[in-house]
Amino acid sequence: MMIPSSSIVKAEKNSNKTASCKYIYSFDEGNKNMKDLLGGKGANLSEMTKIGIPVPFGFTITTDVCDYFSENNKYPEGFAEQLEEKLNLLEVKMIKKFGDENNPLLVSVRSGAAVSMPGMMDTVLNLGLNDKTVQGLIARTKDERFTYDAYRRFVQMFGNVVMGVDHELFEGTIEKIKKENNFMEDTELNADHLKELVIDFKNIVKQETGKKFPESPYEQLKLSIEAVFNSWNNKRAKAYRRIHNITGLKGTAVNVQAMVFGNMGKDSGTGVAFTRNPSTGEKKFYGEFLMNAQGEDVVAGIRTPLPIEELETINKKVYDELIEVKDKLEEHYKDMQDIEFTIEKGKLYLLQTRNGKRTAQAALKIACDMVEENLLTKEEALLKVDPDQLNQLLHPYISKTAKKDIVAKGLPASPGAAVGKVVFTADDAMEGASEKNEKVILVRKETSPEDIHGMNAAQGILTSRGGMTSHAAVVCRGMGKCCVAGCKDLIVNISAKKILINDKVIQEGDIITLDGSTGEVILGELDMQEPAVTGYFKKIMDWADEVRLLKVRTNADTPEDSKTAIGFGAEGIGLCRTEHMFFQDDRIPLVRKMILSKDEKARQKPCEELKKFQKKDFMEIFRVMNGRPVTVRLLDPPLHEFLPENDDQIQALAKELNTTANDLKDVIINLHELNPMLGHRGCRLGITFPDIYIMQVQAISEAAMEVVKNGKKVNVEIEVPLVGEKRELAYLREIIQKTIDDYGEEVNFNYKIGTMIEVPRACLTAGEIAKEADFFSFGTNDLTQMTYGYSRDDIGKFLPDYLDKGILDRDPMAGIDEKGVGNLMKVCIELARKEKTDMEIGICGEQGGDPDSVKFCHKIGLDYVSCSPYRVPIARLAAAQAVIKG
Amino acid sequence: MMIPSSSIVKAEKNSNKTASCKYIYSFDEGNKNMKDLLGGKGANLSEMTKIGIPVPFGFTITTDVCDYFSENNKYPEGFAEQLEEKLNLLEVKMIKKFGDENNPLLVSVRSGAAVSMPGMMDTVLNLGLNDKTVQGLIARTKDERFTYDAYRRFVQMFGNVVMGVDHELFEGTIEKIKKENNFMEDTELNADHLKELVIDFKNIVKQETGKKFPESPYEQLKLSIEAVFNSWNNKRAKAYRRIHNITGLKGTAVNVQAMVFGNMGKDSGTGVAFTRNPSTGEKKFYGEFLMNAQGEDVVAGIRTPLPIEELETINKKVYDELIEVKDKLEEHYKDMQDIEFTIEKGKLYLLQTRNGKRTAQAALKIACDMVEENLLTKEEALLKVDPDQLNQLLHPYISKTAKKDIVAKGLPASPGAAVGKVVFTADDAMEGASEKNEKVILVRKETSPEDIHGMNAAQGILTSRGGMTSHAAVVCRGMGKCCVAGCKDLIVNISAKKILINDKVIQEGDIITLDGSTGEVILGELDMQEPAVTGYFKKIMDWADEVRLLKVRTNADTPEDSKTAIGFGAEGIGLCRTEHMFFQDDRIPLVRKMILSKDEKARQKPCEELKKFQKKDFMEIFRVMNGRPVTVRLLDPPLHEFLPENDDQIQALAKELNTTANDLKDVIINLHELNPMLGHRGCRLGITFPDIYIMQVQAISEAAMEVVKNGKKVNVEIEVPLVGEKRELAYLREIIQKTIDDYGEEVNFNYKIGTMIEVPRACLTAGEIAKEADFFSFGTNDLTQMTYGYSRDDIGKFLPDYLDKGILDRDPMAGIDEKGVGNLMKVCIELARKEKTDMEIGICGEQGGDPDSVKFCHKIGLDYVSCSPYRVPIARLAAAQAVIKG
Repeated sequence: MMIPSSSIVKAEKNSNKTASCKYIYSFDEGNKNMKDLLGGKGANLSEMTKIGIPVPFGFTITTDVCDYFSENNKYPEGFAEQLEEKLNLLEVKMIKKFGDENNPLLVSVRSGAAVSMPGMMDTVLNLGLNDKTVQGLIARTKDERFTYDAYRRFVQMFGNVVMGVDHELFEGTIEKIKKENNFMEDTELNADHLKELVIDFKNIVKQETGKKFPESPYEQLKLSIEAVFNSWNNKRAKAYRRIHNITGLKGTAVNVQAMVFGNMGKDSGTGVAFTRNPSTGEKKFYGEFLMNAQGEDVVAGIRTPLPIEELETINKKVYDELIEVKDKLEEHYKDMQDIEFTIEKGKLYLLQTRNGKRTAQAALKIACDMVEENLLTKEEALLKVDPDQLNQLLHPYISKTAKKDIVAKGLPASPGAAVGKVVFTADDAMEGASEKNEKVILVRKETSPEDIHGMNAAQGILTSRGGMTSHAAVVCRGMGKCCVAGCKDLIVNISAKKILINDKVIQEGDIITLDGSTGEVILGELDMQEPAVTGYFKKIMDWADEVRLLKVRTNADTPEDSKTAIGFGAEGIGLCRTEHMFFQDDRIPLVRKMILSKDEKARQKPCEELKKFQKKDFMEIFRVMNGRPVTVRLLDPPLHEFLPENDDQIQALAKELNTTANDLKDVIINLHELNPMLGHRGCRLGITFPDIYIMQVQAISEAAMEVVKNGKKVNVEIEVPLVGEKRELAYLREIIQKTIDDYGEEVNFNYKIGTMIEVPRACLTAGEIAKEADFFSFGTNDLTQMTYGYSRDDIGKFLPDYLDKGILDRDPMAGIDEKGVGNLMKVCIELARKEKTDMEIGICGEQGGDPDSVKFCHKIGLDYVSCSPYRVPIARLAAAQAVIKG
Repeated sequence: MMIPSSSIVKAEKNSNKTASCKYIYSFDEGNKNMKDLLGGKGANLSEMTKIGIPVPFGFTITTDVCDYFSENNKYPEGFAEQLEEKLNLLEVKMIKKFGDENNPLLVSVRSGAAVSMPGMMDTVLNLGLNDKTVQGLIARTKDERFTYDAYRRFVQMFGNVVMGVDHELFEGTIEKIKKENNFMEDTELNADHLKELVIDFKNIVKQETGKKFPESPYEQLKLSIEAVFNSWNNKRAKAYRRIHNITGLKGTAVNVQAMVFGNMGKDSGTGVAFTRNPSTGEKKFYGEFLMNAQGEDVVAGIRTPLPIEELETINKKVYDELIEVKDKLEEHYKDMQDIEFTIEKGKLYLLQTRNGKRTAQAALKIACDMVEENLLTKEEALLKVDPDQLNQLLHPYISKTAKKDIVAKGLPASPGAAVGKVVFTADDAMEGASEKNEKVILVRKETSPEDIHGMNAAQGILTSRGGMTSHAAVVCRGMGKCCVAGCKDLIVNISAKKILINDKVIQEGDIITLDGSTGEVILGELDMQEPAVTGYFKKIMDWADEVRLLKVRTNADTPEDSKTAIGFGAEGIGLCRTEHMFFQDDRIPLVRKMILSKDEKARQKPCEELKKFQKKDFMEIFRVMNGRPVTVRLLDPPLHEFLPENDDQIQALAKELNTTANDLKDVIINLHELNPMLGHRGCRLGITFPDIYIMQVQAISEAAMEVVKNGKKVNVEIEVPLVGEKRELAYLREIIQKTIDDYGEEVNFNYKIGTMIEVPRACLTAGEIAKEADFFSFGTNDLTQMTYGYSRDDIGKFLPDYLDKGILDRDPMAGIDEKGVGNLMKVCIELARKEKTDMEIGICGEQGGDPDSVKFCHKIGLDYVSCSPYRVPIARLAAAQAVIKG
């Protein structure tokens, strides 16, 4: 039995080892597969160099050096020599010399990690200029204005990015000169103005930092490299990595590249482009450019760039060359590329290529088209679509052009967006939605099963507490309804019907918009876009189904959910929570009677009544599923969740039960638990109140028999929750089996009896439990809670701090924690399959719809994943990708 | 990394295998080491036969046969042949024949498992008698009355034990005949009366069972053997095994033995004796006997037996022989023996020997004496004392002669006994104890830290909820105070100051007695006995200390506890819960201010104030411990435990905090958690409120520095609770280290920084966490809760049912669950020591004082166990035994 401690030890060794001996790679030494070492940008610059794309020469300092520098605050031994050697080589290639007064080499310095991180250090351009080399450059370019513009840009960027001087101080000085001269545009500044600016800027640097602006190009380079390395651990970069769940990187690489200039006159220019349309996926070159400009001018929006097609009329030769290059890149990378280019005096240079970001629609179309074009196999195409991105296609979203007045941010608990009037109780939500026909947003501290009707009626749910798997989050994802949870800046005052957000007040009836994909809470009504599902979506899903080995089921408690899930391709129900049927208005009084009955005899009548309802529910679900496996979980939550809370309900119920309200209150207080998550629930209820489980098994059996009689098939898996000890399951299995056997020869449906694995001890003793089980299903919500010791309802109190401080990378409920929970799962599977080789094992926790978790489930050999209906397509694609990557 | 699934698989194989081929052992084939196969009684009968003690010959049917019979409800193949063969051998040895009309062999049939189980099937004597053989026996004994008495006894015993007829029906018939004849004693019945009784008894059997009394001796034997086997799984036997935590046995053996008769006249007799006094341990033969009687007469108390010494005057020859036999047995078994003997016509037979039960005092004296007598080595002597039994010496107990009116039974949560007037609130307890100087028993649904002063004032605590590690149980064991917890038959009505137990009512002021060792709640005042600690106790402890490898520390929060523990031999503090210091009257307002402060700045002042208190506490503890290691756990429980609950307190606090009562209530409600056990506590608090931990570390450091300055030594281990992820500890370790480093060269004490291992994930990622820790300490209370998913405060709702139904063998909080929790511990230790070979690892959970758990801790290589002061001697002995047993 392996707990892979070896992998942990290995990781440690890696992080302890000194950087490998080769610290710097020239662009002709690397390739695109060296992203870990050279970063994405560096690897691609090398790759382009390798395949003959025109790239200004340069070299990349590896991420190992960053790692070493971060830990030791110095460079590894031998680094300085290698840097000198690579600089020399660059000088030879460019026939220029770094710091040379006559023919100076200028370089750009850029960061570039293995994963693109826009939050990192900006670029430093024109490095190598000083009061001497500037003269050499003037001599070579014969353009004093251009050269001083380059110089002042360099001082400005270096001053800001490397020396940390506020950008505004430089811009203010430019504004001052423009004002003095009554200029509107920067371009009106002449060489003398720019020369003056260089002096002013250097003074600003001195004044702000107390340090002289470094004149030595080597010093400039050294400081720039260090600034890049330090930027790896600045707050912004750390936050970015956290938000985007980027872990396991060694650091950033540094690219030092000879400068080319798009601003050397009318035959120069610069641009950015996508090889296909990133919004629609249309196979059409898409981008913009500016002549006589540097890259930042395109981005800054000072001048309006031209559409890329117009380059053809301006410079056909370069345009044709660009088309050739983009085709070559797409063919080479087999993916849509996002490129940056510069034209220097009529010569085209590529400065960057990378796989282009795209919408979900575009991703699907591009993937399908590229298969059509024989550029990709189906398998390769499947890897080009990010499963999580499919979410965009399954929920309405806020129009991208909408202006947002964001007042708070919570957890993006269930995707989609919603607009409506704020209400504070489930009843108000019902009333608003049904009687007044208004769109409402239900705002609660947290939701409980009692709120279901209001949640159903509302457009979206906003809570101030709870995490990604709080009640609100789970139920909303199940319903495909937008939810922002754990929005801890909110002080929700239910009785006063008010929300306080810092000094803002939101009253009942105010309109707000929620973005469940970002967690944003926005004042007012924003425009919505409906999801666009095209034929490419289906095509990709079909291909995924051909490839994947994992089955995909759904978590569904109603016939409606079941139908939705089948529409999304679900192959069965992995989790049908019977208690969700208990909360409807016509049932909850029966449930309460059942719970509060004094003994088994008194419990019999409400049990019988409830059975009728449950039977009807199961019949409908079985009919819809028609032979697909349906895992029905027996009653799971602690009983007090079902109890009345207000005095009216208690009074009414007391009357029905022939007792007094006070006595009933005592009973209710007695049922209260300090830690209900760890209390009297799951199979513990089944063992103390077997008649409830017997009722449920009868309802399942009778429903199944009737459905089969009417010509449909039934494959039901009866699931006992919360087993942690073999004897629990043995005891209940006997009762369940006997209940079914009591129908004798009438039994005409297929069934299995098994258990949810959600208690750590169940994993550790899985070999024993397997003897009593026909199937296992991991309940990773509870398993994660118990493995970490976190309550999903209370995690909101410390999770934000944990994420901020980098103690956790993300909410552990959002995906399987491979080191902890995942290892327990592996132990479980190994012990169980040792006992029963062909044991069916699935997962029905929320994580069943998380792509990384799906891949992990494939890797450890599960038979199926089960997730909410709206994540079924995501799971299908992720399962296929797992096979292809595996 | 091993999760020993192999051991699980192995166990399975054993239980699946068929019984070995030899099913029956004659008494000359076995020995005392074959208890698993022959049961205790059978193994000892063989052993006595082997060493030449006079034992009536016979044979033992193995426990394997019982196991097979239980599973298959039939005997294994070949069994019948072996039984016939052994019977034949017995007939040859005894020169009698089974069922023979002239010279019949009579046998006894007795059950006997590997562990003594008085709850099992009774004995059947005189088996083999029927209407024909009875004549043969009369002819041989020439005593018709004796023979018919034997016959009616047989029919009566067989009818009751094997055929299940109510004992009273037989006794009633005897009474009737005695009444008719005006007899007072059974002995007055003559042969004819007895002959008539045989007929009456057989009729009763026919009438009650519908079956004829079996005349065939073979049928009688077969039915008796089956009855013994079936008795293995009857309710009484199962309950007995559960209560005494007896698991892993295959079943009972059956002993079939030739009858000898103590009632064959004046030269016959029977008796029971101990080789030494079982109450005091005195080396003096101790027992009683009756002449002309069968064994049951001694037990039944109809005739008063004589002290064993008087046998010397009645029959010196037999007495001398008995003395010789008992000396031989004691020397052979190297333990005090509990023997049964019969004298048949002047010949002595031994019917049983076993190690005698004894009081703790006797156990200590006997062990010491036997070393003195060179009968035992010190190591062997240490094994003769049951560590758990030492509990008797450490707490007052109810006089054994007291008559108990038991009204309810809860969990034996903290040993000892207590008498007092019932009170229902901590304040009432204080008032009763301090002001009125009365002894009180505090009765609560459950206790909370707010009750500590009342618990301290009370003689004992009774709760209706909570398990063996509920707050009440843990605190009481720590205080060495009697506690009965989770007494679920109680309905406690605090407001009405009443307890309902079924139809009984206990009012405030009523006197009750609690037995914390049995869980009994008794009406009225019972006599108490004070613990008697003799010099033998110390001697045994000293020997244990010479042998053991595990260190023994204590869980102590106050200087008083620390002193007590040192008195009991503690070598350090394994757990000092700093928050227990927070609840005192002068501190709690500061704690509340600290918690409710709006920001760090506002928190500073109450923090500073609290620091003074904490520093003083630590100084006292450090002084008492003088260089012994002291593990101080930083703040652990959720903050809301410290908050005010009633309106007066809230109002007062609001005033102090410059806020309104309503606003303060809102804050308090916001701090409430659904599952505090899994919520914002432990290191999660330290991470969100680092200033609290910093304050605690400053208090520790300043206390330590001052104590060292005054010439004492300090070795403090600063412990971070509830770590589940390496980065939690890394983050806090840095803060703790910096806080200490801020004292610069003033730091003059030794310290370590480590963590409690109490979250399953900590075990699974122990290799990573070990990098940040100087020591680990298992918090098995929480680890057990999370591994099982049980809340110790709520387990009372289902634990009684689980024990009743045999789903659990005992409260999993009472001892380490080796399969689940224990395996996690092993994983943890292996991963941690792979990272740091010499990592100090201990345990500070409640289980640290459970002997089996101590042995497990030794086996898996822990450095120390830590338990409440009153269990330190128990742990010391258990640790020594673990070494000796290897």
